[in-house]
Amino acid sequence: MKNDLLLRALKGETIARPPVWMMRQAGRYLPEYRVLREKYGFFERCQTPELACEITLQPIDIVGVDAAILFSDILVVPQAMGLEVQLVESKGPWLPDPIKTESDLKRVRIPDVNETLQYVFDAIRLIKKELNSRAPLIGFAGAPWTILCYMVQGKGSKTFDEAKAFCYTQPELAARLLQMITDTTIAYLKEQVRAGADTVQVFDSWGGLLGPDDFENISLKYIRQIVQALKDEVPVIVFAKGAWHSLKPMADTGAAGLGIDWCITAGNARKFAGDNITLQGNFDPAKLLSPIPVIQQEVRSMIKAFGNKRYIANLGHGILPNVPVDHARAFVDTVKESEVHFAAMP
Amino acid sequence: MKNDLLLRALKGETIARPPVWMMRQAGRYLPEYRVLREKYGFFERCQTPELACEITLQPIDIVGVDAAILFSDILVVPQAMGLEVQLVESKGPWLPDPIKTESDLKRVRIPDVNETLQYVFDAIRLIKKELNSRAPLIGFAGAPWTILCYMVQGKGSKTFDEAKAFCYTQPELAARLLQMITDTTIAYLKEQVRAGADTVQVFDSWGGLLGPDDFENISLKYIRQIVQALKDEVPVIVFAKGAWHSLKPMADTGAAGLGIDWCITAGNARKFAGDNITLQGNFDPAKLLSPIPVIQQEVRSMIKAFGNKRYIANLGHGILPNVPVDHARAFVDTVKESEVHFAAMP
Repeated sequence: MKNDLLLRALKGETIARPPVWMMRQAGRYLPEYRVLREKYGFFERCQTPELACEITLQPIDIVGVDAAILFSDILVVPQAMGLEVQLVESKGPWLPDPIKTESDLKRVRIPDVNETLQYVFDAIRLIKKELNSRAPLIGFAGAPWTILCYMVQGKGSKTFDEAKAFCYTQPELAARLLQMITDTTIAYLKEQVRAGADTVQVFDSWGGLLGPDDFENISLKYIRQIVQALKDEVPVIVFAKGAWHSLKPMADTGAAGLGIDWCITAGNARKFAGDNITLQGNFDPAKLLSPIPVIQQEVRSMIKAFGNKRYIANLGHGILPNVPVDHARAFVDTVKESEVHFAAMP
Repeated sequence: MKNDLLLRALKGETIARPPVWMMRQAGRYLPEYRVLREKYGFFERCQTPELACEITLQPIDIVGVDAAILFSDILVVPQAMGLEVQLVESKGPWLPDPIKTESDLKRVRIPDVNETLQYVFDAIRLIKKELNSRAPLIGFAGAPWTILCYMVQGKGSKTFDEAKAFCYTQPELAARLLQMITDTTIAYLKEQVRAGADTVQVFDSWGGLLGPDDFENISLKYIRQIVQALKDEVPVIVFAKGAWHSLKPMADTGAAGLGIDWCITAGNARKFAGDNITLQGNFDPAKLLSPIPVIQQEVRSMIKAFGNKRYIANLGHGILPNVPVDHARAFVDTVKESEVHFAAMP
């Protein structure tokens, strides 16, 4: 592979500079993406390998990131498990028949991923061919708790209180559903790897809504199974936004990397997570709306705080749709220029 | 005062049991509140002292909390400063003409609070009379950063990226606006105290959206001024949701109490904040949707973890509208019963 910085960072090698990519880098801030969004529906873009491939490669060519991440959505999993999922542009996900009771659970199945999600693996094979070893490809899935949030609440929420109430009032039912999602996700990620994903990231977007005990019982318990099942095949990155309090148990899962958001300093993240794991993050996505000189200065501070060992430069959450492309490029370029900085260090 | 547990907890006295109140306790989960909501608009309820008084006292009578908190809204401050603020039921706040540029700032003034917010002080005097020393009254205001969020973004947001971008791209303008809000808030809270508020809480609902450095520069710097101006008159409680990383500097402001959310353990909160401050929180509001026996068990665990010294039992955020009243009462009653538990301790 021509650029294997990401994989080397995940292995813990000391490299000339940190690798850089951005969560949601294949997305709405790119005019080239918006052109395709005008022409094709969201799931059409996910389900058509040629479109998914084109979108996945856009940020490699346009902003020069060090890794590609599969263009898809975490909600293809509940879809494959039997639930209807709609993605309404600018309104977010909508599941018309969410899970509320034991009888609702009968509508949910652990699918044969090769039947239901074949289009993802086809996209991965095509992307790998088109990438032609220029950079690694990151596969991904949602964490079971985050998937349950949508399956139960039926839509986005600030609090996901209905999803939580489901777990608190019907804990055995919740455990059964979480285990079904976990089993599906393991099969799904294993097939992503078989199709060519070089590493996988598990996104627990709503992990930060849970207190430490609930995070262990409702989320991390299942993430741990996923990491255990995958970690001998590829390095696994876990990103539970907001779950700073559980960086240590997350590091102990066997993950190779941990995503962190901007609300924790590099020093605290390293202290909490320990030395044997790669940290990934943690630029405030809203800061990409700053003037470019401010972005450059803040990126340099971030890299100085994390260093180039066991570190992957990224945002602390997905890139915002209103970020100018040249600001995203300034972020990436400033990380790349840190090579000079590290070379000059005594 | 017949029940001064809250004030004694804020002073650091060891008491028989922790006092208990709930953020948003005067609100939508109460049928008695919903009756008034049907008849009067939101700001009508805030601006009519008899209505504000009746709503403020409802949770004292109905669920038996140890303190009343003024029924009002943090957005009366931007309203008094010259901006139009609408509160659309179930949609949230809406400011039709938000602040974006230097010329927009000309529409903002530091008002005479006795002219613009007289109705609040009238409500406080009436509440104090009706409370008749049964329990203390908590006054409040939003933190300047949180108020700026609405003034700039114009509505609720998951990320308040436009408010952040305003601070990052026009830092001097942002500092001027933050200082104007701070000056207004100090005058406003001083008059609340003069009218009879026994303590005041500063709500930084969106403090947790800022990284540690930004939190200091954009938020805490101004909260500190407010605490300094008020702390010799009444004990001040600061609640910056999600800002666990800054509990120490927040404790150092001179505040008597710090609100904390449910994503931090009692042990970590005490370790980070130090021993010389009262902690307030931190029950997950969604957990009030659990069956009552689960609520009772979880409340007991919480109190055991915090103890009865320098602690006020509360939620980690506002009570949700869909919480049954008997669940709220179970929360309050379980805290009150802890007196027996503490008495039995060796």
